[in-house]
Amino acid sequence: MRFVFGIAAVALAACQSPAVVSAIPGPPPGNTPSPAEVIAASKPEEWRRLDPENTVYMDFPNGRVIIELAPEFAPKHVANIRALSREGYFANGAVTRVQDNFVTQWAQAADPARPPKLGVEKLNAEFTLPRNAPVPFDVLPDPDTFAPEVGFSNGLYAARDGEKVWLAHCYGMVGAGRENDENSGGGTELYTIIGQSPRALDRQLTVLGKVVQGMEILAAFPRGTGDVGFYKTPAEYHRYADMKLAADVPEAQRTNLETMRTDSASFQTLVNGRRWRKDDFYTKPVGRIGLCNITVPVRVVK
Amino acid sequence: MRFVFGIAAVALAACQSPAVVSAIPGPPPGNTPSPAEVIAASKPEEWRRLDPENTVYMDFPNGRVIIELAPEFAPKHVANIRALSREGYFANGAVTRVQDNFVTQWAQAADPARPPKLGVEKLNAEFTLPRNAPVPFDVLPDPDTFAPEVGFSNGLYAARDGEKVWLAHCYGMVGAGRENDENSGGGTELYTIIGQSPRALDRQLTVLGKVVQGMEILAAFPRGTGDVGFYKTPAEYHRYADMKLAADVPEAQRTNLETMRTDSASFQTLVNGRRWRKDDFYTKPVGRIGLCNITVPVRVVK
Repeated sequence: MRFVFGIAAVALAACQSPAVVSAIPGPPPGNTPSPAEVIAASKPEEWRRLDPENTVYMDFPNGRVIIELAPEFAPKHVANIRALSREGYFANGAVTRVQDNFVTQWAQAADPARPPKLGVEKLNAEFTLPRNAPVPFDVLPDPDTFAPEVGFSNGLYAARDGEKVWLAHCYGMVGAGRENDENSGGGTELYTIIGQSPRALDRQLTVLGKVVQGMEILAAFPRGTGDVGFYKTPAEYHRYADMKLAADVPEAQRTNLETMRTDSASFQTLVNGRRWRKDDFYTKPVGRIGLCNITVPVRVVK
Repeated sequence: MRFVFGIAAVALAACQSPAVVSAIPGPPPGNTPSPAEVIAASKPEEWRRLDPENTVYMDFPNGRVIIELAPEFAPKHVANIRALSREGYFANGAVTRVQDNFVTQWAQAADPARPPKLGVEKLNAEFTLPRNAPVPFDVLPDPDTFAPEVGFSNGLYAARDGEKVWLAHCYGMVGAGRENDENSGGGTELYTIIGQSPRALDRQLTVLGKVVQGMEILAAFPRGTGDVGFYKTPAEYHRYADMKLAADVPEAQRTNLETMRTDSASFQTLVNGRRWRKDDFYTKPVGRIGLCNITVPVRVVK
């Protein structure tokens, strides 16, 4: 039944094998540990505290959304978001678009839009880094549909090939909306992924962070009924007070978080426990795990 | 940095290659067609009308959810759902659980639960069929993390290996909740996937259908704050009037749908257009597509 186009079908290998074939660890003996058990057994040095300069709060009426920024991958966008936040550009913002199984998007909701003063509206794209860029890459050996190699970079979903390394569009990842021009984004308008990972966006948008708290808020807004999920009227918007850096919030009002290091033994134990998940309910371990099926633990600092 | 367990790491090929390596079609010339363009150019015979005996309605205050049942894969569960519906078992049901990035689940909300009369509470599992079962399988040649081969069976996401064929847990697929006992489900409690496809559930739960309308309703309920997303109190439930077969609804109240045949040339054109997506916004075609990234078109019959 396969339909082949006028152009001859391109015969590709059935899988984009990494240059170095990695071994998938075997199953641990007995039942696999739950993430809660792995977290309970982890050591303090296996956690990394979020830097307040790289942490953004959006306070909605029903809770706080927290984003960790990714200055290693999108330095200019992150610097611009810091500047925009500090000049008050994001005050009285709103979720303006929710497209089911795709994205929730937010922006300044002023009409007419207030132009930035310290920040800028447009920046050159920061889609990828050179493969040899000095960013960590904790390899996930499991096969991936879209990239030769996937893994984590400082807790962020990432992928690479022989030439480039980039952040991957998994659930909760945050990117900069843009127009058709690749250099038309800048961070004034942001989106996060709320459904099946649309990995075809990888390398075509600037990914600049990850939601580390509050996805249950961003993913549960009513879907917009306008084109591609935009709300038809401002009355449908979901407003937040501001988008502020944790560093600019009084300490008593901060949410101090730490995230499990993705280069730690406990994280590998957690991943392998999900890969070979076996317990009273799950009796048939599959022995594989998808990049976007892994949740990196985050917890409040005691 | 890889952590290897006491057991020696199992060296697996980097990809579960299908027995027969399929060729991925090459890109069409120029920009790729949008799904709307493919639908507009499709022929009437490339569509299949939903059978009212295999179609279920749940009417919420904010709209109708429609599920297409999968009698080829779960014949006993589907027959049981028909019986339960016809005896009124599902009347005054409710969404009782919404776990972010995982599932929305619903059941009879009576307390104490009304026992079934025509239907039953428990059935033997219908997780898989033999590989040579007489079900269609329209192969997707792209690599998959979890199964040697993936594709569509009558429009449903499916996977197979050398021994078995089964339905895959993509966004919107519907399964039967169960207790730890594999044979403790039956269709009295159902769930659908509202986030990243949890493909590790494949072959461990009975998948019996797919939501073909109304995911924007099921995916946008507030997340439950109890254990694994259950609502803590019945006051939080989201009620629907009933779960009725389309065949049992007066014709004037039906929503008559048709779905694009996954063995049609237009469907292949649509898939390849997404695989090599190229337009004014997407300029870097990836040449691969994930099973769960494909949406099978559904439309109201004119």
